[in-house]
Amino acid sequence: MDKTNLSVVLHSKGDLRLEHRPIPEPGPNEVLLQMHSVGICGSDVHYWQNGRIGDFVVKKPMVLGHEASGRVVKVGSDVTHLKPGDRVAVEPGVPREMDEFFKSGRYNLSPTIFFCATPPDDGNLCRYYKHSANFCYKLPDNVTFEEGALIEPLSVGIHACRRAGVALGSTVLVCGAGPIGLVCLLAAKAMGASQVVITDLSSERLSMAKELGADFPLEVKREDTAEQLAKKVEGLLGDQPHVTIECTGVQSSVQTAIYATRPGGVVVLVGMGAEMTTVPLLNAAVREVDIRGVFRYCNTWPMAISMLASKKVNVAPLVTHRFPLEQAVQAFETTRQGLGVKVMLKCDENDQNP
Amino acid sequence: MDKTNLSVVLHSKGDLRLEHRPIPEPGPNEVLLQMHSVGICGSDVHYWQNGRIGDFVVKKPMVLGHEASGRVVKVGSDVTHLKPGDRVAVEPGVPREMDEFFKSGRYNLSPTIFFCATPPDDGNLCRYYKHSANFCYKLPDNVTFEEGALIEPLSVGIHACRRAGVALGSTVLVCGAGPIGLVCLLAAKAMGASQVVITDLSSERLSMAKELGADFPLEVKREDTAEQLAKKVEGLLGDQPHVTIECTGVQSSVQTAIYATRPGGVVVLVGMGAEMTTVPLLNAAVREVDIRGVFRYCNTWPMAISMLASKKVNVAPLVTHRFPLEQAVQAFETTRQGLGVKVMLKCDENDQNP
Amino acid sequence: MDKTNLSVVLHSKGDLRLEHRPIPEPGPNEVLLQMHSVGICGSDVHYWQNGRIGDFVVKKPMVLGHEASGRVVKVGSDVTHLKPGDRVAVEPGVPREMDEFFKSGRYNLSPTIFFCATPPDDGNLCRYYKHSANFCYKLPDNVTFEEGALIEPLSVGIHACRRAGVALGSTVLVCGAGPIGLVCLLAAKAMGASQVVITDLSSERLSMAKELGADFPLEVKREDTAEQLAKKVEGLLGDQPHVTIECTGVQSSVQTAIYATRPGGVVVLVGMGAEMTTVPLLNAAVREVDIRGVFRYCNTWPMAISMLASKKVNVAPLVTHRFPLEQAVQAFETTRQGLGVKVMLKCDENDQNP
Amino acid sequence: MDKTNLSVVLHSKGDLRLEHRPIPEPGPNEVLLQMHSVGICGSDVHYWQNGRIGDFVVKKPMVLGHEASGRVVKVGSDVTHLKPGDRVAVEPGVPREMDEFFKSGRYNLSPTIFFCATPPDDGNLCRYYKHSANFCYKLPDNVTFEEGALIEPLSVGIHACRRAGVALGSTVLVCGAGPIGLVCLLAAKAMGASQVVITDLSSERLSMAKELGADFPLEVKREDTAEQLAKKVEGLLGDQPHVTIECTGVQSSVQTAIYATRPGGVVVLVGMGAEMTTVPLLNAAVREVDIRGVFRYCNTWPMAISMLASKKVNVAPLVTHRFPLEQAVQAFETTRQGLGVKVMLKCDENDQNP
Ligand SMILES: NC(=O)c1ccc[n+]([C@@H]2O[C@H](COP(=O)([O-])OP(=O)(O)OC[C@H]3O[C@@H](n4cnc5c(N)ncnc54)[C@H](O)[C@@H]3O)[C@@H](O)[C@H]2O)c1
Ligand SMILES: NC(=O)c1ccc[n+]([C@@H]2O[C@H](COP(=O)([O-])OP(=O)(O)OC[C@H]3O[C@@H](n4cnc5c(N)ncnc54)[C@H](O)[C@@H]3O)[C@@H](O)[C@H]2O)c1
Ligand SMILES: NC(=O)c1ccc[n+]([C@@H]2O[C@H](COP(=O)([O-])OP(=O)(O)OC[C@H]3O[C@@H](n4cnc5c(N)ncnc54)[C@H](O)[C@@H]3O)[C@@H](O)[C@H]2O)c1
Ligand SMILES: NC(=O)c1ccc[n+]([C@@H]2O[C@H](COP(=O)([O-])OP(=O)(O)OC[C@H]3O[C@@H](n4cnc5c(N)ncnc54)[C@H](O)[C@@H]3O)[C@@H](O)[C@H]2O)c1
Ligand SMILES: [Zn+2]
Ligand SMILES: [Zn+2]
Ligand SMILES: [Zn+2]
Ligand SMILES: [Zn+2]
Repeated sequence: MDKTNLSVVLHSKGDLRLEHRPIPEPGPNEVLLQMHSVGICGSDVHYWQNGRIGDFVVKKPMVLGHEASGRVVKVGSDVTHLKPGDRVAVEPGVPREMDEFFKSGRYNLSPTIFFCATPPDDGNLCRYYKHSANFCYKLPDNVTFEEGALIEPLSVGIHACRRAGVALGSTVLVCGAGPIGLVCLLAAKAMGASQVVITDLSSERLSMAKELGADFPLEVKREDTAEQLAKKVEGLLGDQPHVTIECTGVQSSVQTAIYATRPGGVVVLVGMGAEMTTVPLLNAAVREVDIRGVFRYCNTWPMAISMLASKKVNVAPLVTHRFPLEQAVQAFETTRQGLGVKVMLKCDENDQNP
Repeated sequence: MDKTNLSVVLHSKGDLRLEHRPIPEPGPNEVLLQMHSVGICGSDVHYWQNGRIGDFVVKKPMVLGHEASGRVVKVGSDVTHLKPGDRVAVEPGVPREMDEFFKSGRYNLSPTIFFCATPPDDGNLCRYYKHSANFCYKLPDNVTFEEGALIEPLSVGIHACRRAGVALGSTVLVCGAGPIGLVCLLAAKAMGASQVVITDLSSERLSMAKELGADFPLEVKREDTAEQLAKKVEGLLGDQPHVTIECTGVQSSVQTAIYATRPGGVVVLVGMGAEMTTVPLLNAAVREVDIRGVFRYCNTWPMAISMLASKKVNVAPLVTHRFPLEQAVQAFETTRQGLGVKVMLKCDENDQNP
Repeated sequence: MDKTNLSVVLHSKGDLRLEHRPIPEPGPNEVLLQMHSVGICGSDVHYWQNGRIGDFVVKKPMVLGHEASGRVVKVGSDVTHLKPGDRVAVEPGVPREMDEFFKSGRYNLSPTIFFCATPPDDGNLCRYYKHSANFCYKLPDNVTFEEGALIEPLSVGIHACRRAGVALGSTVLVCGAGPIGLVCLLAAKAMGASQVVITDLSSERLSMAKELGADFPLEVKREDTAEQLAKKVEGLLGDQPHVTIECTGVQSSVQTAIYATRPGGVVVLVGMGAEMTTVPLLNAAVREVDIRGVFRYCNTWPMAISMLASKKVNVAPLVTHRFPLEQAVQAFETTRQGLGVKVMLKCDENDQNP
Repeated sequence: MDKTNLSVVLHSKGDLRLEHRPIPEPGPNEVLLQMHSVGICGSDVHYWQNGRIGDFVVKKPMVLGHEASGRVVKVGSDVTHLKPGDRVAVEPGVPREMDEFFKSGRYNLSPTIFFCATPPDDGNLCRYYKHSANFCYKLPDNVTFEEGALIEPLSVGIHACRRAGVALGSTVLVCGAGPIGLVCLLAAKAMGASQVVITDLSSERLSMAKELGADFPLEVKREDTAEQLAKKVEGLLGDQPHVTIECTGVQSSVQTAIYATRPGGVVVLVGMGAEMTTVPLLNAAVREVDIRGVFRYCNTWPMAISMLASKKVNVAPLVTHRFPLEQAVQAFETTRQGLGVKVMLKCDENDQNP
């Protein structure tokens, strides 16, 4: 084990540094991990570029990264289900209090939750990282570290589709074909959706969506009105979709989502937009189209691992770029430019495989 | 039985007339009713004043009224569960097609549904009216005709609370203390809500709410911001409400509803406002506060009758005014002025009792 | 169109005849179908061999068959969504009354429902058959008639998995690999089950299950105790299954189902056994393992058609034998002997294709 | 604070002793309570009489008691939401591991849960007791200590009714009018049940049920068959109940529960009977009557406190006997003889009020 712990630290807006930090010591219920693969998320880039997301402000240096997997190198005294050598995927949100949200199974809503790389909590873009053992999940041999790291974005897709009630034979509209739109597509298909329309402004992103199984990629022009787009979606599917999963956060796309959805259906809001949004709420209300938010996820890692192990979901094609940890800044720059889909940082000097 | 059928007919915007129409003949699956008590709804007044509600336009003369009860005087050849003399409450929405909505138990969403006093379908503010026997429900002896008529608005409250998931110990915010806010209050209490805050601009309406069981009437001033009101609600309950039922349709009140509701909770939209609404959707989404519409109701009459028969809900105090059918215009004028809560028209010349 | 209507008629226990019956005339809401493919179900054979199933007794001659598809040749006066030439799958259960079950979306529970080949209602093993147009569903061009007929057994699987709450990543135990166990397997996989164990006494049936996607075929020996089998299942999956779908009706298998299922999980009873069953109910109760029955299905045809059209479920391999309608008795004999999985009767003289 | 801690200790079958034990020291997340009121449960008596319940065997001395309330006298270093002087109700089950059950909100199913007075875990029938602060809930001033203690049995009723899906207008059959049947009755009424039939062999228990709000007490004779009783229930309600809550554990009563329940309804098993039970499972399955177990409860204390504070549920009449802690043996003897409903032990020498 090294003596130093190379880490990707955001000091303040625009000030991203590679630094050596001490290797942490795990507490009784924690494990120390040697990090292997960590994906870069839009939020990491957003903190770098803006120093904040909404009310979360970077006030002191913070390690970035929350889409992660690694190998256990040390276990705390009370840990029984993991041992050194185990390969694990990391669930980045760990509730700190047994409040009503945690007790009722919705710990993602706990206001005091620890979450990697959400200020002031450090993330895991580093060589060594300690985490609550209860939120590290052992990977079977046939699931790679990168697949393990991709469970984090996939979990957003799973939670979105679960909240949407995607079921056998559902028809689904996904708005936006960024990384999050794509994992929603994958999750919807795995849950039995029969047909998925996916929209984007970019034809490249739509090609990727098509490769990943989208039935109808739909290129959006800036001049299309929300109601026109809704009609196009109905035309493609032969009927309005049961479910719409909004993954852009853009107001006009939220409007499309509402108009497009079938009476009695569901719009799930994954994309995060402006504080106030103007929407055809009356249209949704009189057709009993429910509007449900998604805040991260809960209770998804075990099922995601099952799906990956049984090869029912294929997330590997999402990784389009890889960089060694030392080149973190280039990696961040690549994501910032919107090149490819998912950029992976390889944190283990001796093993840069997927 | 009379030879004529005095009816309250809206010819066009502002043109409300009392006319004699023929007594209809029931079809094989229908019953002919001698109407007893019919409440006036805000929508009846709205059609009278505006000639339309949204896309529903009065293009030819239409009988008003849809909150109704009466006595069976004739049954169609295929009707077996009703007989002349039975006292019944009328569910005004009757699906015309066995479409996916009807087959899956959400017939209120069927786009081709018949609905009393929604153009072009005639309502039942008249002496004699025929209706699908399957949507007439026998009243037990200890439920009055007026209680039977009030099942219609009460059903909106039941459906709203059911869609809200009001449960034992729920804390509830009801926005608006008009007739619809009040039935939501009654339904919430009957479903086990522990505490209900109810808002209105009018202190009189709030007094009525208090009499009907509201724990915290909250008078809204025009200068209160949505976030301030949300804070006040939290102050009254000691925590944010699990559920908010919006019954005004006013934009600022919808905003209050979202800010006020607890993470993981539900906002139900009963009030109908403008086509487009500006709301803090991001705030709802990141706290997973679901927004669910309510369009009328389905499957409520049998349970409402049980509740009335077992005296678990008391709707009688909602009736503040009564007029004989002949004085329909004065009755409509009373409702238009917002006097009292519910105005009842008494359609049976020989029995004007509740 | 022919003048006669060759039909497979059960007169009484053991007395199966091919007869010419008149071609029926469709009522206003009905369509007349020229039948194409009709599968033989275990229940058809059971009526033939026993003259009854439980309280349903064959008292007068009854046409058999309820797994059917055909072509519309005539439409009733009120039918608008179908026209002559349309290829349709037939949902055999048609509610007769708008009772509480129908209104709330569970029409399969309506006690007065019409159901093909359940005494005294005639089935559709014949050349010409009339049916409620609302329960005939148009098949897209890329779904064969045989796939259309197989929607009936597939619907049992869909309804079972839906009632079981099979979800993404669920692990599932299916007890029994007869036609019904196999459709439950297919439906579970399509709904996102990650791993399925399936049991049977017959290694041949298990081979078929393996071909259809079962992860772990488990051969049951008569000497295995229920608790031992439950342990084996846990061994194969690495944990207890979330869901068990019992498709044998055999008491020992129901016991296995309960012992095997994870706390908080669900056992669905599809198999129909003896009137009284001795089961470890306490074991189920203290682990909150729910026990849910399945009676046929409701609201499955549209989603099944979507799944078939989008090639997400492949039912074609279930058909192992085909006979022209004229050879119905040999066909029934084949099913009686338990040869293969599904025997199809081809009712159209001019088109015996799948 | 005393130096000694008088405690009710079960040494082995039949050997119940009052002993002085040391006053425990709370850990960082714990509080030390001065106990006030502790109810005696059937299970306490069962351990005393039999030394075991199923697989739970008393192998070393164990303090009894789990229906408890008390006053905080000391708080651990990490406790922030409670302070000395606070009056609290104690939830006796505290999960030890963050396993899948806890994470998904069903911590009662966690196999390693701590539970007061379930071997080997000590209960709280003593003067001083320490407990996880997260499972102690502050009582408002208008809720008495005894009401606080009664939240434990009431929680069984709430959890049962919640799992049963009791809703507005539900008709309910409760089998057995012991303490548990009675709390199910109270919970069902508070959740909106319109009519409740309750059965028992004892007319005295049925009188108590009637006082607590049962609509139809039904005395069961040993010679009544299950099917006859089911018919009687239907006769009383005019239709089969939507929900049946079985609170006897007796086989014939479980059979009645199944026969009695409406198609599509739910039977909840609260009573604990023999390992194997013979039941009409086919009857349940073909009518889709679900059978759901109840194991204690989860997430009930906050809602129960709301209900008590808002006076929507009145549990006070359940307490029929009170004894000071020193007379614990007489108190246990009273419960053993089935006298009254709930026997309370008063643990605070200086305050023996309710
Ligand atoms: N709710 C959560 O827990 C959660 C978690 C992760 C990400 N997010 C949010 O999800 C959203 C998507 O994340 P991402 O990483 O995929 O972002 P991204 O920016 O990579 O992708 C968004 C895509 O939407 C497309 N787009 C923009 N306007 C559009 C329009 N009008 N119609 C159709 N497509 C349009 C863009 O071209 C882009 O491809 C972001 O708003 C992000 O903040 C939410
Ligand atoms: N969704 C449905 O199926 C359905 C059915 C019936 C009625 N409605 C709608 O429900 C709404 C209420 O119906 P109603 O008959 O009670 O109407 P109403 O006009 O009598 O009552 C509305 C009440 O809201 C109050 N109000 C106005 N602005 C407010 C604010 N900012 N904060 C708090 N209170 C405010 C008013 O003072 C009034 O008392 C209407 O919009 C109606 O169209 C919907
Ligand atoms: N609930 C419904 O609506 C519905 C609908 C259709 C069929 N069914 C029922 O489903 C059941 C299955 O139907 P099917 O057509 O597949 O019947 P089937 O007889 O062809 O198949 C049953 C299979 O179970 C196997 N089996 C027997 N004992 C077993 C044991 N102890 N362990 C494991 N496997 C065992 C048999 O070998 C056989 O392969 C029947 O009971 C039928 O009545 C119910
Ligand atoms: N599932 C759980 O978490 C849980 C929790 C607490 C208690 N319980 C169980 O609940 C049951 C009831 O507990 P209790 O404390 O009320 O017990 P109890 O013995 O005081 O009450 C049972 C009642 O059932 C009546 N009874 C017996 N046979 C009957 C019959 N055939 N028909 C109608 N009534 C009959 C008895 O007369 C008695 O009044 C017990 O089995 C207990 O083990 C379960
Ligand atoms: Zn992310
Ligand atoms: Zn109305
Ligand atoms: Zn069949
Ligand atoms: Zn107890």
